[in-house]
Amino acid sequence: MNTERTRPRVIRDPGALHREVAELRRGGKKVGLVPTMGALHQGHLSLARTALEECDVCVTTIFVNPAQFGPSEDLAKYPRTLDADLDALATVGSQIAFVPETDAVYGPGHATWIEVGAVAEPLEGQCRPGHFRGVATIVLKLFNMAGTDVAYFGQKDYQQVQVIRRMVEDLNVPIQLRVCPIVREPDGLALSSRNVYLSPDQRQRAVSLYASLCHAEKMVASGETRADRILAAVEEILLEQGKGRIDYVAVADPETLEPVEQITGETLIALAVRIGETRLIDNCLIQPPAG
Amino acid sequence: MNTERTRPRVIRDPGALHREVAELRRGGKKVGLVPTMGALHQGHLSLARTALEECDVCVTTIFVNPAQFGPSEDLAKYPRTLDADLDALATVGSQIAFVPETDAVYGPGHATWIEVGAVAEPLEGQCRPGHFRGVATIVLKLFNMAGTDVAYFGQKDYQQVQVIRRMVEDLNVPIQLRVCPIVREPDGLALSSRNVYLSPDQRQRAVSLYASLCHAEKMVASGETRADRILAAVEEILLEQGKGRIDYVAVADPETLEPVEQITGETLIALAVRIGETRLIDNCLIQPPAG
Repeated sequence: MNTERTRPRVIRDPGALHREVAELRRGGKKVGLVPTMGALHQGHLSLARTALEECDVCVTTIFVNPAQFGPSEDLAKYPRTLDADLDALATVGSQIAFVPETDAVYGPGHATWIEVGAVAEPLEGQCRPGHFRGVATIVLKLFNMAGTDVAYFGQKDYQQVQVIRRMVEDLNVPIQLRVCPIVREPDGLALSSRNVYLSPDQRQRAVSLYASLCHAEKMVASGETRADRILAAVEEILLEQGKGRIDYVAVADPETLEPVEQITGETLIALAVRIGETRLIDNCLIQPPAG
Repeated sequence: MNTERTRPRVIRDPGALHREVAELRRGGKKVGLVPTMGALHQGHLSLARTALEECDVCVTTIFVNPAQFGPSEDLAKYPRTLDADLDALATVGSQIAFVPETDAVYGPGHATWIEVGAVAEPLEGQCRPGHFRGVATIVLKLFNMAGTDVAYFGQKDYQQVQVIRRMVEDLNVPIQLRVCPIVREPDGLALSSRNVYLSPDQRQRAVSLYASLCHAEKMVASGETRADRILAAVEEILLEQGKGRIDYVAVADPETLEPVEQITGETLIALAVRIGETRLIDNCLIQPPAG
């Protein structure tokens, strides 16, 4: 059997995808959705793998969504590697790749947007105005186009997951959400489609994101509870070791994303840093020691 | 057989409704949705009747949506007549009434809103800031909660229908929309749950809305193409005969709702008038004479 080496079937028409998934579900199949912007790496593939463990069919969507890029961001140069992506999906066995044209996604006169409120405002929301509006809108569109049982997202985009959770709950969207852990390089760098932008020197400096999170985790494990001290230590590592420009470092409530001053329970540490021209994000959830 | 005299079964829990409709559809039944705010009149019932002609099961929702009322509007005094509504639905045979509590619709921390853009901006949108945001959001929530094949709306809320059309198209909502004609009293007053607010004198003056639309229709049938002349004539009737305070009168493109100066094809005439404290709306589509 070499079905695992078969490329997914490419569907470009939203209506065709909807009919196909409806047909599968009527036949008793459970269908999972993995929304991506392509340039697939092992992080994306881990989502597809989990989808295939939990569902009968995995639909991977590949669509670089213009609406979530700001005017000065990297939409034009964002890596587009469809051929390699289909090969990569063959290795995990995702049966369907939904690869719509931009015009088929945003029709003429498109004017409807989803605003998710407070959880979309800090961190990425502050650095990238309009980003989560674009994310929430495309994600709901993809959910509606596909009509799957479940959708899979990576914890690397932590705030994105919280925005989508909020939207799904507030709009009663009939889909189950699953969040999968961050996949990292052996040296700790979180996988990202934007890592290809890094020069060898920048690539080395980029390890500082993970190093700073590990340091924060150790501080908390040793009993540190003051957010300001943790922030200072994380920022020092990002600046010294990473020579990065910091967009933000946050010690925050994992649900509301509001800043936390004293760590008393599970806490999010999230950061965004520019290494050269490349903007990287990372995060971890930390727990203060018991007792 | 007196099933037509049976009151609909009341479902209050959104999850229970979703499961029930999903089960019906799995069993091959076509299900229609009639979203209302209760205080049902023959306009609403005509929607349910059409739903039952076209579907196997009609779900009528009764929910006074706080999010579509402005702070100075009539949310508190909006008529709530559940008992009479269930009797009225019995006369047409709607099998399910979905009557959720407000807390079950807007959970704690609700923060997601749908903005529909240009078509929601003029006319009602200008007079009632936030109204269509509230309408679009509740309608999508109800669509998602119910998961029916079709939904029925009345043309009386013309702009609302255009807003919902735009949203359904832009967000790829998997539901079919059907729009049913305005139902009127014998003297032409469009049925509205707010007509109960009118005193006998106001009730008589309220006929001016329909009278003004008929007059506009006649002008166009006689060859008038200038919107300004039609507007002047309509406003005169509303002011003199209706003694109303005009919120707006519009001669507009039926799709975009943008103002039209010359009538060259199908054209919307829409108006909103206060008779005493009661705000009434009405509209009609007119066609210039052929040739």
